[in-house]
Amino acid sequence: MSNVRVAGVGLTPFGNAPERTSRDLFAEASISAFEDSGVSRDDVDALLYGNFMGELSEHQGHHGPLMAEAAGVRAPATRYESACASSGTAVRDAVMRIRNGEDDVILVGGAERMTNLGTAGATEALAIAADDLWEVRAGMTFPGAYALMAQAYFDEYGGEHEDLAHIAVKNHENALNNEKAQYQSAIEVSDVLEAPQVSSPLGLYDSCPISDGAAAIVLTSEEYAAENDVDAPVAITGTGQGGDRMALHDREYLARSPAAREAGSEAYADAGVDAADVDFAEVHDCFTIAEVLAIESLDLFPVGEGISAARDGRTTADGETPINLSGGLKAKGHPVGATGASQIAEVATLLSGDHPNSAFVEDASTAVAHNAGGTVASATVHVLEEVSDR
Amino acid sequence: MSNVRVAGVGLTPFGNAPERTSRDLFAEASISAFEDSGVSRDDVDALLYGNFMGELSEHQGHHGPLMAEAAGVRAPATRYESACASSGTAVRDAVMRIRNGEDDVILVGGAERMTNLGTAGATEALAIAADDLWEVRAGMTFPGAYALMAQAYFDEYGGEHEDLAHIAVKNHENALNNEKAQYQSAIEVSDVLEAPQVSSPLGLYDSCPISDGAAAIVLTSEEYAAENDVDAPVAITGTGQGGDRMALHDREYLARSPAAREAGSEAYADAGVDAADVDFAEVHDCFTIAEVLAIESLDLFPVGEGISAARDGRTTADGETPINLSGGLKAKGHPVGATGASQIAEVATLLSGDHPNSAFVEDASTAVAHNAGGTVASATVHVLEEVSDR
Repeated sequence: MSNVRVAGVGLTPFGNAPERTSRDLFAEASISAFEDSGVSRDDVDALLYGNFMGELSEHQGHHGPLMAEAAGVRAPATRYESACASSGTAVRDAVMRIRNGEDDVILVGGAERMTNLGTAGATEALAIAADDLWEVRAGMTFPGAYALMAQAYFDEYGGEHEDLAHIAVKNHENALNNEKAQYQSAIEVSDVLEAPQVSSPLGLYDSCPISDGAAAIVLTSEEYAAENDVDAPVAITGTGQGGDRMALHDREYLARSPAAREAGSEAYADAGVDAADVDFAEVHDCFTIAEVLAIESLDLFPVGEGISAARDGRTTADGETPINLSGGLKAKGHPVGATGASQIAEVATLLSGDHPNSAFVEDASTAVAHNAGGTVASATVHVLEEVSDR
Repeated sequence: MSNVRVAGVGLTPFGNAPERTSRDLFAEASISAFEDSGVSRDDVDALLYGNFMGELSEHQGHHGPLMAEAAGVRAPATRYESACASSGTAVRDAVMRIRNGEDDVILVGGAERMTNLGTAGATEALAIAADDLWEVRAGMTFPGAYALMAQAYFDEYGGEHEDLAHIAVKNHENALNNEKAQYQSAIEVSDVLEAPQVSSPLGLYDSCPISDGAAAIVLTSEEYAAENDVDAPVAITGTGQGGDRMALHDREYLARSPAAREAGSEAYADAGVDAADVDFAEVHDCFTIAEVLAIESLDLFPVGEGISAARDGRTTADGETPINLSGGLKAKGHPVGATGASQIAEVATLLSGDHPNSAFVEDASTAVAHNAGGTVASATVHVLEEVSDR
């Protein structure tokens, strides 16, 4: 089986850009990805693109062909919508297509325009990643849903808000050097604890921001990279996807994410690695509690121990398994459709030594990216490995 | 390469059901598909699902896991959005995954709830399959866009509204026996010509209706079908996808569909057949002119001759190449997200001899399904073949 190479990546700054359209954002990200890869647009066989709320924020569906145009490629284009896991899902299909021999070069990515809706509008738009009939109409928002999950976690495994605060502090710290991050500012545990409450136990600093941004990645087959002298030292060696019931009340567990566990197991098996091989990870920390559930689902920490991992320094940049060296959704930002692809881009850049935080993982060879949709009713996990010398 | 077998299909009635949710519709279609296939829900490896306007009609995104639940399957689920080609795109990815060995059994389909929006609301929602900035804000609707394409066709190749009228008459005739069709009533050429004008030269009877409905298909690998004694005499042997510029003003041709031609060529080559092998086809006739462009793009008729094909009886049920024996979008209905999968279902049923119109194509072994998004900025084409005795 041919491994899939990351030939180049491109990210826009994540943050507030309410005047920019998603096509404008994706054009910028794809220009960077093509420049980084040296691959010609003419060689692209397909565009796989993730977007979540374009219908509501831009009165626009059918993003595939529009984004192919924005990226300057003439290739069939497909839009994937899987809530906050939209572009993780697109990456997964790209990996399968290249392995399959269907395509040699795929442009994969995503974008989201959100801040033009304002906080109330974006929160309402985000809510449709939950079950409209049984959750949204009952007043559920995503901060509320994750607050329920946090309370359930505390009840079952212990822990308190202060433990979660260390996650926010760590992720802000990691973003300090990431010039594309929405927040490049340090915060203290006391800032998190004293911030306005959003939905108990979660406060404003437990939540990722509303963001505009785009991510683009040029993926190629191993053969194409070799034949065309593409500098692509990182491969995607494992892919997995999991699903769960949509509504929280239909779940067996509130304080675990079986969809992410399933996706992780599949990705590990696919790559022929296990959790012990993972040197660092980018995980979907839309709320601080989400990072806890993610690192436990990926078996990076035992169930019940994820809550104290950041507090104990086990997931900090110089800890045993650094988590969210990019700053994560919390500090880097979360333009929904771009997030999954941006995580892959960060991991590849960290592994190849070109990331501002690469020094923390100099000896790393294996890493994981975890992208979740809704309250983890959908999840994709990818394993990336360094396959040649820096 | 393993061919992909159609193990079972299910369709709801297409038509007016404003009180039914898309999850309700898809549950019904999937129950039929599982019954028809004899395949257990427990064996399903993935759900690939097409939907276009759920955000606007049901305030619902993230349809994948919701529809897995509706169908009673526990499997990772992905939603594809490619305007009116949404579920054709889902079928294409399902075919690739099964060939790839990634999955053995896939539930693929789609649904759309539209009539609850009313005509004005649904027309506005459909418009976002076009370029919002450059077409929709200038007042473009889909009837208007296809009217431009029809005018351009008449200018370039000749023909008149009366030629198009024969297409509507034929498709209504074909739907008379199709109990799932929205319209099971015969019309005359004079009805089409005298109907209220929608956008010159197109009138009310040149347009497909606004519809609610769902389609589901159980696809399996050849190996799975053999090992599990699944009665699956029809295979999907070719798949193709094409793309074009989003906005009409950016196109080289108004009266041709290069995206469909590209998808068709790829699907023919993939199946190892050519247009001369095609015994009949289901094509995307959202407007009468769309059927003309489709059959020319698929090389079933030379460019410039598609316009007179229905008038001359070449595409009628007893003609040389029957087109839209199901009734097509025009008479069967067009619940957008369901359409592509429903076309595959109709073709498979026609080939296997179980369709009310199978007698017209008793000796047929090869057929094509053509699904288009927007003004054919996206297109998928699939070749289906009968692979074992009836």
